[in-house]
Amino acid sequence: MLVLSEKKGVDWYSLSLKLHEFYEGKIETIPKVPVRRLNDFAIWYTPGVAEPSRQISKEPDRSFEYTSRWNMIAVVSDGTRVLGLGKVGPEAAYPVMEGKALIFKFLGGVDAIPLVHRARDPEKFLELLELIEPSFGGINLEDIESPKCFHILEEARKRLSIPVWHDDQQGTASVTLAGLINASILTKRNLRKSKIILFGAGAANIALYRILRSYGVPAENIAVLDSKGVLHPDREDIDKLMINHPWKYKIAIETKGAGLKPGTGPAGALEGADVVVAASKPGPGTIKKEWVAKMAKDAIVFAEANPVPEIWPWEAKEAGAKIVATGRSDFPNQVNNSLIFPAMFRGVLDVRAKSIVDDMAIAAAEAVAEFARIKGIHEDYILPTMEEWEVFPRVAAAVAVKAVEHGLARRPTTYDEELERAKKIIGKVREKYLKLWETGLISKPPVDYDENRLR
Amino acid sequence: MLVLSEKKGVDWYSLSLKLHEFYEGKIETIPKVPVRRLNDFAIWYTPGVAEPSRQISKEPDRSFEYTSRWNMIAVVSDGTRVLGLGKVGPEAAYPVMEGKALIFKFLGGVDAIPLVHRARDPEKFLELLELIEPSFGGINLEDIESPKCFHILEEARKRLSIPVWHDDQQGTASVTLAGLINASILTKRNLRKSKIILFGAGAANIALYRILRSYGVPAENIAVLDSKGVLHPDREDIDKLMINHPWKYKIAIETKGAGLKPGTGPAGALEGADVVVAASKPGPGTIKKEWVAKMAKDAIVFAEANPVPEIWPWEAKEAGAKIVATGRSDFPNQVNNSLIFPAMFRGVLDVRAKSIVDDMAIAAAEAVAEFARIKGIHEDYILPTMEEWEVFPRVAAAVAVKAVEHGLARRPTTYDEELERAKKIIGKVREKYLKLWETGLISKPPVDYDENRLR
Repeated sequence: MLVLSEKKGVDWYSLSLKLHEFYEGKIETIPKVPVRRLNDFAIWYTPGVAEPSRQISKEPDRSFEYTSRWNMIAVVSDGTRVLGLGKVGPEAAYPVMEGKALIFKFLGGVDAIPLVHRARDPEKFLELLELIEPSFGGINLEDIESPKCFHILEEARKRLSIPVWHDDQQGTASVTLAGLINASILTKRNLRKSKIILFGAGAANIALYRILRSYGVPAENIAVLDSKGVLHPDREDIDKLMINHPWKYKIAIETKGAGLKPGTGPAGALEGADVVVAASKPGPGTIKKEWVAKMAKDAIVFAEANPVPEIWPWEAKEAGAKIVATGRSDFPNQVNNSLIFPAMFRGVLDVRAKSIVDDMAIAAAEAVAEFARIKGIHEDYILPTMEEWEVFPRVAAAVAVKAVEHGLARRPTTYDEELERAKKIIGKVREKYLKLWETGLISKPPVDYDENRLR
Repeated sequence: MLVLSEKKGVDWYSLSLKLHEFYEGKIETIPKVPVRRLNDFAIWYTPGVAEPSRQISKEPDRSFEYTSRWNMIAVVSDGTRVLGLGKVGPEAAYPVMEGKALIFKFLGGVDAIPLVHRARDPEKFLELLELIEPSFGGINLEDIESPKCFHILEEARKRLSIPVWHDDQQGTASVTLAGLINASILTKRNLRKSKIILFGAGAANIALYRILRSYGVPAENIAVLDSKGVLHPDREDIDKLMINHPWKYKIAIETKGAGLKPGTGPAGALEGADVVVAASKPGPGTIKKEWVAKMAKDAIVFAEANPVPEIWPWEAKEAGAKIVATGRSDFPNQVNNSLIFPAMFRGVLDVRAKSIVDDMAIAAAEAVAEFARIKGIHEDYILPTMEEWEVFPRVAAAVAVKAVEHGLARRPTTYDEELERAKKIIGKVREKYLKLWETGLISKPPVDYDENRLR
């Protein structure tokens, strides 16, 4: 990111610090009911409130009808893997979770609150989620170290009756799939028959492997590489993996290294490959130009590391790649989770879903990809940007009907009904926000920064 | 409460249910920072947000500066003693906690979120609080069964470095003390030399006992009665109490029954008493007219049970009581926690307090009492109503300087400084709320209820 700053002459970090200090946080609560006189509290608090309580005590799921629970999620982190900063602890994770909560509300109309905590032990973490489940309509997990995050997500999905989503896994995997779908179309590939290299075996790529499999890509078409090379049943450390990292182990067994020899590194793996998705460590130079040069014709290169992609887009292009995507907003084709998570939760909350299955993540990816196609895809536009907010209600509707199909919806809906509902909810948030902004009730920033330079 | 409904012709319960269903909850989150273009998220989220995170990782307390934590509290309940409904569970507690969160914001400018949970076991409950501490500037406990609530409050105050408050204990005790201070003045009593009967030994009166002691009332002036009569060292069940209810035991030992014989019930205890504070079970008839008739001249009777006080105010008056207070808004002298808790938290949050000691609760009580005196106290006005919102900044300022005195403030302040700050924060909430209300962005109620009939 320093590169970005130097390039554009804006010090994002000190600007962000200054503004965080000035605004003292990013979200607040506000009443959404009439309080015309203070004795209206007799309706919202005692004695009146006893009646919704009584009704809910008979049927706990009615808490989705009489309280804000239906739209309230927790953005949960133990602070063990915050951005690129690592194990900085729950307090330091707070500003990130609060930023996510801001995006949830702004793009998805979802009430989200940061819930950073000290439960580093996986079993304690899970217990915490089970204890607080009655307060929320969903849980968004974030910035949790690997491989703990896999276990926590899997178990939480089993134990809780509200949707649990780990954005670093499912969110990144979904938006990546959306990009791959359109990149395949542009390069006249069948993604299900392509040779795919996943470079890096962290949260994002391990989830992507699973999502690709659900999408219909055969295991033997996918090679997954960690820092020791391709995951392969004949790898020396395979027994250790079985115990310490069953997710990598499973991939090794299922893919059999996609025909690569044990010990093959990225140079060998990329030879002849159609697609590489790198979610590993910041570049440049993590992926070398000469490796990309040996990929199949019109190769697809997703280099998702932040702040600097594994390979600069122009280098990948020079080496023959046809479609290049990164995690950066200042290059074309940003692979941005924000295209998925706010709308994913809009959809599942609106049907009071009990869970999010991979099929729903795929439906979200397909809706995002379809939206871009309607707008008109080309080499430099395989995904919408987060400013194209019409995409969100569509994703919400796609997710909602998929939840209904899977029998996971407490409240069924149709695509059109959910599309309208999502538009209305998201639209109202913007209306409220704009009213406060326009009337000066949200303070103007104390420093005069040129927003265009922040692109 | 049925009595109230019948009397006024308004069915509060069904009205409340209808409105809860229509509004789908009472609070929501809203951004408080500029989001002029979606790329402003580069400041509020990645990459910019890394800098506040980095700063906080060096010094966790800086999360009070760069995030909403400084103003965010959790309204926490396990749903084991919700209103008069009992052990109805966390989901059914949600509407009550959300109502409290609404009041916190509206009267105190405090961001509060409902956190209902399944940790009924006291040790689990405490552990949950310890785990989530980094997310909040304070904890408001609510509707927890007795005697578990005493242990949880005591321990949480020891283990956490943010204020923990159990409103059913400290809130009720503080506002009761405020009322007693002014009632004593009106009846020309010295409260510290009065004979005080606490009728009922639940959360409110056990906390009141402690607060009165801190206020300077000698133990031997206070008799506390539970359903078996006065707490007394010679009571038959004293050994059991020592084990099962150390709080009652301690009172028995300290007060020695205030000179009453073991086995004395309310009839005997009230004879010659100056003050009775009943926080027991709904009346009418829980306290009998003839008992009040035998109290000292110009007796003070606080009958706080809801929905129906232990004795009707007019009966107490007929029996010779000079000052009568209840928990009801439709009688004079409502003993209403809402006079304390929003401002208590305003004060402690503004100084980033580490704890709330009883002295701070007393300071709050004195500020409330003083405010009423400035307005002009009389038999039917010993306490302000919650509509007199000028009281809140005063209470906040009194609490804040007391926290500073006790060395509990992370950020010191003066009375005048905090008075201004509290006025500004609370005023801004009203301004924002009114803007949304006036512009129709908070929907008008679907039923046309006559709010005046709801008084």
